[in-house]
Amino acid sequence: MKKKNTENVRIIALGGVGEIGKNLYVIEIDSDIFVVDAGLMHPENEMLGIDVVIPDISYLIERADRVKAIFLTHGHDENIGGVFYLLNKLSVPVYGTKLTLALLREKLKQYGHNRKTDLREIHSKSVITFESTKVSFFRTIHSIPDSVGVSFKTSLGSIVCTGDFKFDQTPALNQTCDIGEIAKIGNSGVLALLSDSANAERPGYTPSEAAVSGEISDALYNSQNRVIIAVFASNINRIQQVIHAAAQNGRKIAVAGKNLQSVLQLARKLGYIEADDELFISVQDVKKYPKREVAIITAGSQGEPLAALTRMANKAHKQLNIEEGDTVVIASTPIPGQELIYSKTVDLLARAGAQVIFAQKRVHVSGHGSQEELKLMINLLKPKYLIPVNGEYRMQKAHSKIAEETGMKRSDIFLIEKGDVVEFRGQNVKIGDKVPYGNILIDGLGVGDIGNIVLRDRRLLSQDGILIVVITLDKQKKHLVSGPEIITRGFVYVRESEGLIVQATELVRSIVTEATETSNVEWSTLKQAMRDALNQFLYEKTKRKPMIIPIIMEV
Amino acid sequence: MKKKNTENVRIIALGGVGEIGKNLYVIEIDSDIFVVDAGLMHPENEMLGIDVVIPDISYLIERADRVKAIFLTHGHDENIGGVFYLLNKLSVPVYGTKLTLALLREKLKQYGHNRKTDLREIHSKSVITFESTKVSFFRTIHSIPDSVGVSFKTSLGSIVCTGDFKFDQTPALNQTCDIGEIAKIGNSGVLALLSDSANAERPGYTPSEAAVSGEISDALYNSQNRVIIAVFASNINRIQQVIHAAAQNGRKIAVAGKNLQSVLQLARKLGYIEADDELFISVQDVKKYPKREVAIITAGSQGEPLAALTRMANKAHKQLNIEEGDTVVIASTPIPGQELIYSKTVDLLARAGAQVIFAQKRVHVSGHGSQEELKLMINLLKPKYLIPVNGEYRMQKAHSKIAEETGMKRSDIFLIEKGDVVEFRGQNVKIGDKVPYGNILIDGLGVGDIGNIVLRDRRLLSQDGILIVVITLDKQKKHLVSGPEIITRGFVYVRESEGLIVQATELVRSIVTEATETSNVEWSTLKQAMRDALNQFLYEKTKRKPMIIPIIMEV
Repeated sequence: MKKKNTENVRIIALGGVGEIGKNLYVIEIDSDIFVVDAGLMHPENEMLGIDVVIPDISYLIERADRVKAIFLTHGHDENIGGVFYLLNKLSVPVYGTKLTLALLREKLKQYGHNRKTDLREIHSKSVITFESTKVSFFRTIHSIPDSVGVSFKTSLGSIVCTGDFKFDQTPALNQTCDIGEIAKIGNSGVLALLSDSANAERPGYTPSEAAVSGEISDALYNSQNRVIIAVFASNINRIQQVIHAAAQNGRKIAVAGKNLQSVLQLARKLGYIEADDELFISVQDVKKYPKREVAIITAGSQGEPLAALTRMANKAHKQLNIEEGDTVVIASTPIPGQELIYSKTVDLLARAGAQVIFAQKRVHVSGHGSQEELKLMINLLKPKYLIPVNGEYRMQKAHSKIAEETGMKRSDIFLIEKGDVVEFRGQNVKIGDKVPYGNILIDGLGVGDIGNIVLRDRRLLSQDGILIVVITLDKQKKHLVSGPEIITRGFVYVRESEGLIVQATELVRSIVTEATETSNVEWSTLKQAMRDALNQFLYEKTKRKPMIIPIIMEV
Repeated sequence: MKKKNTENVRIIALGGVGEIGKNLYVIEIDSDIFVVDAGLMHPENEMLGIDVVIPDISYLIERADRVKAIFLTHGHDENIGGVFYLLNKLSVPVYGTKLTLALLREKLKQYGHNRKTDLREIHSKSVITFESTKVSFFRTIHSIPDSVGVSFKTSLGSIVCTGDFKFDQTPALNQTCDIGEIAKIGNSGVLALLSDSANAERPGYTPSEAAVSGEISDALYNSQNRVIIAVFASNINRIQQVIHAAAQNGRKIAVAGKNLQSVLQLARKLGYIEADDELFISVQDVKKYPKREVAIITAGSQGEPLAALTRMANKAHKQLNIEEGDTVVIASTPIPGQELIYSKTVDLLARAGAQVIFAQKRVHVSGHGSQEELKLMINLLKPKYLIPVNGEYRMQKAHSKIAEETGMKRSDIFLIEKGDVVEFRGQNVKIGDKVPYGNILIDGLGVGDIGNIVLRDRRLLSQDGILIVVITLDKQKKHLVSGPEIITRGFVYVRESEGLIVQATELVRSIVTEATETSNVEWSTLKQAMRDALNQFLYEKTKRKPMIIPIIMEV
């Protein structure tokens, strides 16, 4: 970066604000555009039939030539799950740490990404120089190893993105946090700080990872039977802790689930997980060992963390079913909206005779810093402006309140929504512009074709089903040739509602006969008349409003 | 009850075990059948389009002449919400305390129940004599006043149903618990105890109601603005506490919501809520008072506890919208499965500028006893056998574990499922028989006509929508006269998928032409061929599986 003055800086969140998930932050320094993280989010209950949600990136596509690089803070889906879709539209280098890029390669393979990709590995000492800025990194501690923060140097001060972080004094897997480096960036002057708000509503400090190792080890020690431990496949810390605890308690380990096996293999290859080979046995061999000498680790994807456990409890798992006396440790907490699935799975496991350890014991701790840790980050970096990110609105608001407690002025804290542009020009700062933003819903291969209309139809269909009525009319003589034929799905139990269907058919017959006898009726008007009459009749009889589809065939 | 020996006693749960909700317990003493509670349950997320769920009562209907009475323990939906459907089939007297019957009358009016009903009011000293037994009651403490337990005296020992209860030493609304009476029943010998397992997984004691009054009063005291408090309409204790706290803090009260207004009016008329008239103002008059002198109480039904709050936050409430600086107290906890709606509502309120007090402050406590209180009930009644009820399986299991801690043998504790019959004949006890049981799903006016097929269709429709393909064939010449015409809903965004629909139409045309040219094809075989071809084609193109409905019209 030749020593010249930065004219203007723009910061935009296309995802990751007003929500937890699909983080995507745009940092514009003069004409260069940089992207920090490109994640996905799991669909909410109302997004019926949708697989994943990614941010609308049309703003970036329209400026593809100015986009210089994508920087990834760590390997969670919320941060790398959308890179595949970006690389379909932008050919741009992707910078990330060793484990993060390894996880990204796996994902790109999974999605069948066949275009050439420019993945560049960095570490905490790397510095990448661009026309408009110098980019440096600092190690942070999160629930996955190799996580970093990113800092962009400009003459107006640095722009710092923390990524997800906590300050844990006894972290897992000898992770460290470059507090010295962070302080140095702080001393050199920080213009704007984008910091993690996920736990901004929680007072005090987030408990340490060390607390979890003890609980898992106790579970393995106390049980005279098999112990099955469910983790998130992406939570590599937890996997290492389970392996350590099993080894300490003289138990072999069986790894259930392809996804978990590939993550474990990758993490061991890259040195993020230490484990001797003879510690592992296959799931089929579990029955060859005394129950006291076996531990099983299983994981579902973030979307269905407990899918495998549910199958085991229902005796529907190919290799391993729950037996009376088993202990099951659920070492993960439900993501919002999944609480019911969790409590149902716990119930199923109890029915199958297992003793279940979950929330009541500290077998999981959050990877995000609580209020005191967020204050520490602010005090280290001493930013002129703070932009709370990675949280719902109320978490951003809570983050703003504790920032004020450290002495920041409310006017120097921006609670932004998706698409808001925070612009720094010289000493002035302005929020005003709005760029295109939104959710892109992915269903199967379809990227973004599912909009509100399709979702609305699915909701309607899911409430009271559908009633299809078909008639065939003679085009010239305009009279009924065949039908009306009525077919329903999801509306009534047909065998018990014959009377209702017969009455509805007669109703339609009378409407069609009357319409075709009198005037030169338009098909669309006739269809509307059929729809209105059926709507009223069916609501009176059943208090239900099925979707009604009149179809007119001409011969 | 003339002094004669009871030959046999049968206990069956038609609802309320393996679930929280729709309590319905059948107590058979020789030829007499008694019903304790007849509640409803709110549908789970997968029960698409369903309003409420009640137990299958065909077992009772087939023995209508032997059913002598329905006893209600308290006025919550889970205990009285199904009485309307029972009274449609059985003409039988219903016994309940003053408030419970008053709430039942409101519900019967709401459902438009026009048949004559025989409601008989009881109090804790009442004793009802039948051929086979004497029924007595004891006051309990729960989150609604006037709750009682029910005891059936037989020569084999009493059968005791506690209903929902906790032991609270500083309860709200001068409620009391007849511990003396319970001990007396215990001393006279209890054969079987059906006790509340909802909090059986929680160690220690459930916090007292008194803790809540303090928090609500603080919220009203600390705020210099308006305070809006959301409660469950059925939680009459909480309503009284809010009224007391407002009066203490010199605030007028506006009651938002018809349902809450009618419950308040009823409870005041019956003397369960004390409040001076001039304390109340209309919601419209709220703006006439300084913000510091106003409190608003609002409530949704159990199904949508926060519906009104969401409208206020979205500025879509007819009378009252959230303003910057308002404090909102959510004095209720989400029922399982509603956690996401809660956190979204909190977020909406934060966006609208309100400060939200909910889980982190003790503004709500459970109305169910924790482990120490459940042990106390067992020690008071010293039952020969224990049947944990009102809980999911894992809660019944936890209840069984703590019963063992009090010295009961595991073999004397029955973890029953719906329909299991626990039979006592002389000194022997047996579990074996199974009576008809299940869920009756109520959708609009339809009672029980919605079965698994309709639900399965709704689920399918909700995932990838529907594709309808209609063709008209000449019956004699067996050739295509019109169509194929394809209509889709909830599958693809039609405007962007014309190509796909055209290809699908051509695919169907080729199948029909080929089939009608060659052989004397059966319509059902032709439909299946169309369905299979479309399934494969559409999955290849979109990775989606819409419901496919082929329709053949004949002319």
